[in-house]
Amino acid sequence: MLNVSGIAASAGIAIAKAFILEHPDYSVEKRQINDVDAEIAKLDSALGKSRAELEAIKERTLQELGEKKAEIFASHLLILDDPELIDPVKSKIADEMVNAEFALNETASQFISMFENMKSAYLQERAADMRDVTKRVLNHLLGIDFMSPAEISEEVIVLAEDLTPSDTAQLNRQYVKGFATNIGGRTSHSAIMARSLEIPAVVGTKDILSQAKQGDLIIVDGLDGHVLVNPTDDVVAEYRAKQEQYDAQRAEWRKLRDEPTVTVDNVHVELAANIGTPNDVTGVLENGGEAVGLYRTEFLYMGRDKLPSEDIQYNAYKAVLEKMEGKPVVVRTLDIGGDKELPYLDLPKEMNPFLGFRAVRLCLDRLDIFRTQLRALLRASVHGNLRVMFPMIATLGEFREAKAVLLEEKEKLVAEGVAVSDSIQLGIMVEIPSTAVMADQFAKEVDFFSIGTNDLIQYTMAADRMNERVSYLYQPYNPAILRLVKMVIDAAHREGKWVGMCGEMAGDETAIPLLLGLGLDEFSMSATSILPARSQITKLSRADMQELAAKALEMQTAEQVVELVQSIQA
Amino acid sequence: MLNVSGIAASAGIAIAKAFILEHPDYSVEKRQINDVDAEIAKLDSALGKSRAELEAIKERTLQELGEKKAEIFASHLLILDDPELIDPVKSKIADEMVNAEFALNETASQFISMFENMKSAYLQERAADMRDVTKRVLNHLLGIDFMSPAEISEEVIVLAEDLTPSDTAQLNRQYVKGFATNIGGRTSHSAIMARSLEIPAVVGTKDILSQAKQGDLIIVDGLDGHVLVNPTDDVVAEYRAKQEQYDAQRAEWRKLRDEPTVTVDNVHVELAANIGTPNDVTGVLENGGEAVGLYRTEFLYMGRDKLPSEDIQYNAYKAVLEKMEGKPVVVRTLDIGGDKELPYLDLPKEMNPFLGFRAVRLCLDRLDIFRTQLRALLRASVHGNLRVMFPMIATLGEFREAKAVLLEEKEKLVAEGVAVSDSIQLGIMVEIPSTAVMADQFAKEVDFFSIGTNDLIQYTMAADRMNERVSYLYQPYNPAILRLVKMVIDAAHREGKWVGMCGEMAGDETAIPLLLGLGLDEFSMSATSILPARSQITKLSRADMQELAAKALEMQTAEQVVELVQSIQA
Repeated sequence: MLNVSGIAASAGIAIAKAFILEHPDYSVEKRQINDVDAEIAKLDSALGKSRAELEAIKERTLQELGEKKAEIFASHLLILDDPELIDPVKSKIADEMVNAEFALNETASQFISMFENMKSAYLQERAADMRDVTKRVLNHLLGIDFMSPAEISEEVIVLAEDLTPSDTAQLNRQYVKGFATNIGGRTSHSAIMARSLEIPAVVGTKDILSQAKQGDLIIVDGLDGHVLVNPTDDVVAEYRAKQEQYDAQRAEWRKLRDEPTVTVDNVHVELAANIGTPNDVTGVLENGGEAVGLYRTEFLYMGRDKLPSEDIQYNAYKAVLEKMEGKPVVVRTLDIGGDKELPYLDLPKEMNPFLGFRAVRLCLDRLDIFRTQLRALLRASVHGNLRVMFPMIATLGEFREAKAVLLEEKEKLVAEGVAVSDSIQLGIMVEIPSTAVMADQFAKEVDFFSIGTNDLIQYTMAADRMNERVSYLYQPYNPAILRLVKMVIDAAHREGKWVGMCGEMAGDETAIPLLLGLGLDEFSMSATSILPARSQITKLSRADMQELAAKALEMQTAEQVVELVQSIQA
Repeated sequence: MLNVSGIAASAGIAIAKAFILEHPDYSVEKRQINDVDAEIAKLDSALGKSRAELEAIKERTLQELGEKKAEIFASHLLILDDPELIDPVKSKIADEMVNAEFALNETASQFISMFENMKSAYLQERAADMRDVTKRVLNHLLGIDFMSPAEISEEVIVLAEDLTPSDTAQLNRQYVKGFATNIGGRTSHSAIMARSLEIPAVVGTKDILSQAKQGDLIIVDGLDGHVLVNPTDDVVAEYRAKQEQYDAQRAEWRKLRDEPTVTVDNVHVELAANIGTPNDVTGVLENGGEAVGLYRTEFLYMGRDKLPSEDIQYNAYKAVLEKMEGKPVVVRTLDIGGDKELPYLDLPKEMNPFLGFRAVRLCLDRLDIFRTQLRALLRASVHGNLRVMFPMIATLGEFREAKAVLLEEKEKLVAEGVAVSDSIQLGIMVEIPSTAVMADQFAKEVDFFSIGTNDLIQYTMAADRMNERVSYLYQPYNPAILRLVKMVIDAAHREGKWVGMCGEMAGDETAIPLLLGLGLDEFSMSATSILPARSQITKLSRADMQELAAKALEMQTAEQVVELVQSIQA
């Protein structure tokens, strides 16, 4: 038995035979042809078959995974029909009298390397899409009998170097029980896909392909990040037990879907979800989310070549508000700049982008961008329970300025006869230390706070969490962080305002008892964390957690805080 | 009368005739020569004259400005005698039969552009030095009768595009009453020189050279940053009055040199100075400094091609301690990394250097560097009143680790029979928000705190103060900063420890009343700010300032705090 370690990318245990997914050799030779029309017909036929395949995959994806995921294949179809790609291929066949696969490969390669050379995440993705499409057409042109994952018809575990967007979309949930890849991390495309498909997965194993062969018995442990090759019967039995235990836990969690989140001493807190697009709302509701605690509007601005119009934004905000059916939706205004680039804004390079010109700082400078977003939000406000939140607020002056712009746009809309809700709550992210320290003054003027721990920790500890050499200083459990969180919550409660948290910490098992004890009102996390968090909270007593938190605030180090929490969990 | 605005670079008022300092045209023609020996003799003669000039300038600089400033000319002399420069020039004359000025200019240009292309501040400076030396030799070779500032023999105000190190060193204090330049900022070489020469200066006027001509009457207002060309008699009278008032104030300040810093209600605080090299101690004592509150040891590590040895460091620390004659000297251990580069350490580029691998983070990783510095400090400790301070401490764990290394080195030295002081105070910089928030826990273990406001403000506001687009958020008077300062001071005093401040804020006229009210024990600033600060503090009542500070802590914005302080100053 071999035990290969990797990164736990999607929770659960899967046990089945290996299906090795290896991509064929697509190297192409140049040949002189005589019959141009026949060669073009061959190309058209391959394009037609590819189109039919893509339509089918797109349809299945739409049914099983929703609109957003299906968009990938819609864009593949666009590439396939793009005259800017296909016309030059046909000209090349005719002008140079060369074979279709060579003409296609040459032309596509030029586009791909052009896209790849541009420093834009958007164009890099376009390059990956074009590579995917080219391979699909080459399958037909070269007559490669590629056993695609779509054709799997028995229970398997897919092992691969990596999985492309088409690969994962073609995985049939009925048969594919899990997968493991050589490369990738927790946020790679295949990992994200596995989590939304709820298929156990381990990525980044480095060499699972060289350790296993077609038909080997495989266990994928997506809880601890292991892949076992040809395990003994005892080990299989052990993992079956682990699988049952996990499934039972999930079943228990599922029962909590429509339950409120109430502690044993009857304190209710709100469990909300962080989302990026309207399509994410389905997952929020399926996982029993009581609200959207953070709608990151950046995605609306990315993957385009210009700013999104007011109407594009309005439709997105409206869709989220409507789907949430009156449940609260906290929309964060644009948090771009710094490390998150928008090529079409052409922002200057900064020496320290995390301490730079971003989020509300940029919006208060580029009022054109800000006003458009606020108008779209105000117009959408009548379709649900909208709450607007400004990111990166460092001073009361900034909040007042941002609020004034919002009120101006509201007045204009009302004057134009447009309906606008009168009960929009207006809050801020607390992610800058100055704002936490001044929370008592802010609390007099805002309707709510949402603590953004990712940035708050980074600034409070003066450590870039992306920088490996100092990431040990990114300490969510440092008593300094807990003290700042307490300052914010106490200040808000004194003014009768509520406090949420939308950083990674809000869904963290070790942090939840402390946050409950500190009095946090709303916990916003990734949708799949909601049910485990609800399960945890319903077993805790708020009074006990208050005692725990009081002790934690007097600890000297993060390590001591973790030990303290573990002592009650043991 | 013309009024040209610029940057106030050195305080005071000067009134005199304009001396336009314009550098001659050094363009050089290539000529074929016949007599190589004669051409080399011509070069040697020019080198000799240049050497004599440089010796004289170096001597005068040493007398008037001290060793450190004279070093520039010592390095010019080294360049002049460097066979790596001079030999190729002579070979070029002989091999190519070309004129000396052409051979010199070509050879020097190659070195200069080589130095300039390397991304090292040290080599950039070497390039500037070589350019200076080349011009000096060309003066003699080309027979240019350049009226150097050294030859000025009547009272003048020098107007120039910019001033080179040689220019400023040649300014005769007896005759040069002030200067104004087109370019430069408060920290440019000429501005720093003006302050140490105590000559009023305005820099960065953009076009003073085109606004004034030789012999015009000029007023340089180094207090408000104006240059007046051909003022009316009334204006001259007005400025004479302003000059007298300023001179009277300076005379008053001078009287305080040997006085303690005591408020009207008899509270004593300590006024200390920030220094970078042993030579700076002279200025500290001349300005009545009671201590060195921050000795930045980085300069020992810069301008070299490898780490400074333990002995080099020991001698520097010993020199400072001895010159301070038992007065306290707070030495900050190495604060390098991030934006302060040391080419020979070859640190990786970081996305956010201010949130990166620097100072004590680097020292705890590169213990070889840290141990050498600590040994040098421990050995020097017997020569005065040493206090050691660790920069960029974010967690108690880091402090404990750094302290343990120091104690290990102390034990080793004692075992080796080396004398080490037993009364070295051990403290930390408070420049990271987490440390300010956790000051109560730190106070149990450190001997003192020194608040580093430059970084503390930057992290607390999440704004890079070097980034123009967000520098408006660098707010020393934001109540959040004052609250953190209060937390630190209160925590220290509860444990009987003292608190200093060594950021720019400590010498700031508006901040001083607030800091006094908050209970700051030691104010460390640039030496020239000490007497004005002492003058200010001796007129204030600590009890009144406590009331003022209490009000400031309850303000909502930095603007309100400034108004509050101004209300008591009015």
